[in-house]
Amino acid sequence: MNVLWIFAHPEPRSLGGALRDEGLRTLRAQGANVRESDLYAMKWKAVVDADDFGAAAHSGSAAPFEPGQSDRLIVGSTSKTAFETGELSDDIRAEHEKLDWADTVIVQFPLWWYGMPAILKGWFDRVFVKGFAYGVRRSDGKTSRYGEGALAGKRAMVLLTAGAPEATIGPRGVNGEIDDLLFPLQHGTLWYAGMSVLPPVTVCGADRVSPEQYDAAVEALRDRLRTLSTRDPIPFRRQNGGDYDEDLVLRADLAPGRSGNGVHLL
Amino acid sequence: MNVLWIFAHPEPRSLGGALRDEGLRTLRAQGANVRESDLYAMKWKAVVDADDFGAAAHSGSAAPFEPGQSDRLIVGSTSKTAFETGELSDDIRAEHEKLDWADTVIVQFPLWWYGMPAILKGWFDRVFVKGFAYGVRRSDGKTSRYGEGALAGKRAMVLLTAGAPEATIGPRGVNGEIDDLLFPLQHGTLWYAGMSVLPPVTVCGADRVSPEQYDAAVEALRDRLRTLSTRDPIPFRRQNGGDYDEDLVLRADLAPGRSGNGVHLL
Repeated sequence: MNVLWIFAHPEPRSLGGALRDEGLRTLRAQGANVRESDLYAMKWKAVVDADDFGAAAHSGSAAPFEPGQSDRLIVGSTSKTAFETGELSDDIRAEHEKLDWADTVIVQFPLWWYGMPAILKGWFDRVFVKGFAYGVRRSDGKTSRYGEGALAGKRAMVLLTAGAPEATIGPRGVNGEIDDLLFPLQHGTLWYAGMSVLPPVTVCGADRVSPEQYDAAVEALRDRLRTLSTRDPIPFRRQNGGDYDEDLVLRADLAPGRSGNGVHLL
Repeated sequence: MNVLWIFAHPEPRSLGGALRDEGLRTLRAQGANVRESDLYAMKWKAVVDADDFGAAAHSGSAAPFEPGQSDRLIVGSTSKTAFETGELSDDIRAEHEKLDWADTVIVQFPLWWYGMPAILKGWFDRVFVKGFAYGVRRSDGKTSRYGEGALAGKRAMVLLTAGAPEATIGPRGVNGEIDDLLFPLQHGTLWYAGMSVLPPVTVCGADRVSPEQYDAAVEALRDRLRTLSTRDPIPFRRQNGGDYDEDLVLRADLAPGRSGNGVHLL
């Protein structure tokens, strides 16, 4: 097993940092090969801009926007050109090499404003470029996404620390349920790019853990790392598996009358 | 009306940039006072780190994590101390001054991986610090959040450009419904801090708009800007309005048997 561990916490001596250390130890003891992207330690550049794309970025004129005009920075198509011509910046290409190597990716972060810290969002914004992580077509002309695509065959798991008490991110909790809060990442990013997504590991009340709670969190994490290659992933529907119509809307006879993120589960 | 317009697109000559220009013109023609935070133009620092907090950030020892230990960077409490002692970095304090001035905030961005670009997430991570945007207690000891709090009385509206076709982010669309994708921002951030959140303005198929579609998008935006101060906000439930129990879980007799983000609407 080749595991890439992405860590996005500013403080290595945090609860998150301790869980990362325990997690890496556990994986190595299992005989896994482990590499890490410690984004704060790497001083990862969070912000997409023209510098990412080398000569592929149009320097452009100063003409104002017009519909259909292409003489400006269009992130998707420019990133695809830069990927195909090898002009992406070195830091992005280094992450691609790690992802090519990995069969399993752990995405670890503290929940900030019910999402990823900016440094981690910027890892996805910059690394998951068109051509590498999405925008690949099948032989029948359909776009490979949601269960198919360049990263299909790899597994991903989110490891989360959250300040909120568990009930508040459970069903009907005031902050919204964790599955819904993570939908843009787990479904809209990881599954979109083809990865199988394992249920997340969530540690709540992060700034107030007792020694007993800490021990329990470590034990739960170790258990989940031992079953990384065997546990069933979240059963998201495949885009091209027949469940969605030509407009990519769920067929009326599936989860009839319902809406919400849950309808995208088998 | 004092409007702060937050713009998070790397290319001013984009569809987003054109809508921003039209929006600012429309507001000024209405007699509104307008200020802007153009995050790419400002080279906004996206990443929270100890430099944000001046002397309030613990330089700390190299001791490993222990539960209960405080000698490390704890973002929430450190940001609160730095806010109270005036030690937050100049760029954060400048945004606080703009927010204090504004009664209305427009949050404009292209949808990247079903969320905000990192530069904008980092604006919330760094500007919405404890003490300024959350973590304020009422006289009865309850925490002011979700409809109450330091930013209560202000209005916010998201203006979004998205590459995806409209049906795919509509009800039962493969990408998830836009209300769900925006829940962490609209509910978990803006409403959390007390702001009233107006329904978003969403322009789909952003890289492929025809001149007719562009004209329609501008007209829709102008209409929404004309009704900024009168339109009903999204009817999110208040945390302390009696709908949630002591664990902050929705009472069983409200939206009985249901779950999902929709239960947090009146």
